[in-house]
Amino acid sequence: MTMQLPASRKDAVALDASDPLRHARKHFALEEGLIYLVGHSLGPATSSALAAVSGAATSEWKQGLVRSWNSAGWFDLARAVGARIARLIGAGENEVIIADSVTTNLFKLAAAARPLARHRVLIVEEDEFPTDQYVIEALAQLAGTDFVRAAPGRGIEAMAQTGGVLVKSVVNYRTAEVTDIRIAETEARSAGGVIIWDLSHATGVLDVDLNSSGAIFAAGCTYKYLNGGPGAPAFAYVSSDVVSRITSPLPGWMGHARPFDFDPHYEPAADIRRFANGTPPILSLRALGGALDAFDGLGMLDVQTKAAQLGDLVLARTEAMGLRSTSPPIGAMRGGHVSVTHADGYAVVQALMAAGVVTDFRAPDTIRFGLSPLFLSFADVWDAMEVLERILDTGEYKQPQYQQRATVT
Amino acid sequence: MTMQLPASRKDAVALDASDPLRHARKHFALEEGLIYLVGHSLGPATSSALAAVSGAATSEWKQGLVRSWNSAGWFDLARAVGARIARLIGAGENEVIIADSVTTNLFKLAAAARPLARHRVLIVEEDEFPTDQYVIEALAQLAGTDFVRAAPGRGIEAMAQTGGVLVKSVVNYRTAEVTDIRIAETEARSAGGVIIWDLSHATGVLDVDLNSSGAIFAAGCTYKYLNGGPGAPAFAYVSSDVVSRITSPLPGWMGHARPFDFDPHYEPAADIRRFANGTPPILSLRALGGALDAFDGLGMLDVQTKAAQLGDLVLARTEAMGLRSTSPPIGAMRGGHVSVTHADGYAVVQALMAAGVVTDFRAPDTIRFGLSPLFLSFADVWDAMEVLERILDTGEYKQPQYQQRATVT
Repeated sequence: MTMQLPASRKDAVALDASDPLRHARKHFALEEGLIYLVGHSLGPATSSALAAVSGAATSEWKQGLVRSWNSAGWFDLARAVGARIARLIGAGENEVIIADSVTTNLFKLAAAARPLARHRVLIVEEDEFPTDQYVIEALAQLAGTDFVRAAPGRGIEAMAQTGGVLVKSVVNYRTAEVTDIRIAETEARSAGGVIIWDLSHATGVLDVDLNSSGAIFAAGCTYKYLNGGPGAPAFAYVSSDVVSRITSPLPGWMGHARPFDFDPHYEPAADIRRFANGTPPILSLRALGGALDAFDGLGMLDVQTKAAQLGDLVLARTEAMGLRSTSPPIGAMRGGHVSVTHADGYAVVQALMAAGVVTDFRAPDTIRFGLSPLFLSFADVWDAMEVLERILDTGEYKQPQYQQRATVT
Repeated sequence: MTMQLPASRKDAVALDASDPLRHARKHFALEEGLIYLVGHSLGPATSSALAAVSGAATSEWKQGLVRSWNSAGWFDLARAVGARIARLIGAGENEVIIADSVTTNLFKLAAAARPLARHRVLIVEEDEFPTDQYVIEALAQLAGTDFVRAAPGRGIEAMAQTGGVLVKSVVNYRTAEVTDIRIAETEARSAGGVIIWDLSHATGVLDVDLNSSGAIFAAGCTYKYLNGGPGAPAFAYVSSDVVSRITSPLPGWMGHARPFDFDPHYEPAADIRRFANGTPPILSLRALGGALDAFDGLGMLDVQTKAAQLGDLVLARTEAMGLRSTSPPIGAMRGGHVSVTHADGYAVVQALMAAGVVTDFRAPDTIRFGLSPLFLSFADVWDAMEVLERILDTGEYKQPQYQQRATVT
């Protein structure tokens, strides 16, 4: 991970020339001149993803019609695409299914996990992604289970004390701080607690190894670093060690052992398929399948390493501009984005956008730079920092058109 | 509804010439020579739907990227498309949202409805669509609520006796028998019970009028008669009379009053948006939006009337062939499909498929003919019946290649 940071654009270009991921960029259908630093929010389209969705719409839906359930493999598609994600997160091929949203998957897994925990309390930290808080609190209410909103960073401690079920992001959505899965799982085992990992900001950018880290449950988003497309369905992971002992609180016909028997009584499928629900959105699912082609042949350690290096570059440059970062300075402790604060952060983000550099803003003052390693080069990030420096130096962001608030994602 | 049934192909063609829906067919991208009688399972693609998904993939995702949340209206899309379905089912424009699967929506609505019922028992009939049974039984288990699996057709009685929450299909998925919403809701009001309507086999083919029938809760499928595409996301309806008093057990950030505040505490949106969950699958949602264009300007009473007439024709012809129907003989009591039984039904369906007539089979012996009125003509159905008659008369279906079982939808 040690690397000399580029001190000039020439250095950056030289780094790009020896980047083991340099061939991945060709998959992406990005507009020339745009520097897209929000792959942590919505990954861009790849040509494979666009071709896959077009093929699904025309060959499979229009021509194949209902026959495509068999002929185009729709029936097994959620598991087959899940198996491709499994490789990226160190899971077995029958341990990951594409289904629902992250919200719904966290709900299903947390409910299902309760019988495995020493105590049925549900825990989430108060700086956790808001949806995770909403849905776990609502689950506790519905199931009549105790709920603990732990202080920031104190969730594992609360889980160890209670032996309850903790829902926790591997990468914090604001700061990008990484929680070590292996250490936390060791704690969980000795305390009799269970952890549901939210991999939304980790999958596709960190070298996550669920099996070897002892992780039992995880869910995650596919439209960030996996580039699956807007609102692409989420995934759920359950270790094959426990899956047969637990059931989904949201059983659907796709999760039945024999869906086409239309049996009024539920008999769950033997593996992760039991966490499938209704019919998955095939067009969106096909886009995701196509998007995963960009990861073929890549090593996730290379991906993580490059993300860390790009982040180091942003940190070094923004620090020199006098901006404070809330992200860990050590690459290995950080996810794929870097957050810095600026009192007028909203306007800075707007001014960057106007100059062709897309970043995002999280109230009250956080600017996030997403560093997707598959399509960003060191030169891209260098150029983005040059633009930022100019905007700050000239005070360009103070222009009235950048101050006006609209809905921002 | 009284109509002289066609006694010849010439009669059928004459009926088509005066069909008020005859212009709807032009929207559909159906292969020449194929008679598609499974619109109740997966509706075919329309040119608008294909254009919408292609535009969403290329203009919105590829070019617009994350900016499309604002510029392409993604943020309000689930409600905007819901408002178009609202028109087809007699609901207000802020009473319908596109979200999740039918399974998940039934779960959310049944959980949310419990405080409105006199008693917290959950009820479903034992011949209800299996998923509805699975998920409502699982909800009861999770919430520690009593669960009643009522005898076929006795759900409303059980609801009236207990004052509980009943989940019931408006159209039975096997027989197509219709339950009168207005009568059932009158029962519910006097008993203090609540009904969650599953509109999966009703939306887009029956003239459903939720508001005027007193319906409070409903969910339904969009990939059957609405032709929204494979696995298109489902919808949920809650009457504006009650929506502010109830909450979703699966709250997601899209259902927050101010999603971009990222508030750790959940404050539900004022209207049906509170039943939104995670980010919806935009590509699939766009396809659905495009598909709804085919309904623009159509009257749902015309749609229902034609479906009933097409069904009457199937019933008359199959009865003459000696087949027994399990569907109601009166059109107004029937949804958009007609079921007949045949001991060798599986093989008959395969032989029909080989002859270009697509129908479906439900074990052990049911053949379903879906009569989507927007793209089927009387001549189509006439021709399909001619093929069926030939297959039965010649015993063609007894050929070994039609006997071999595969997964069938």
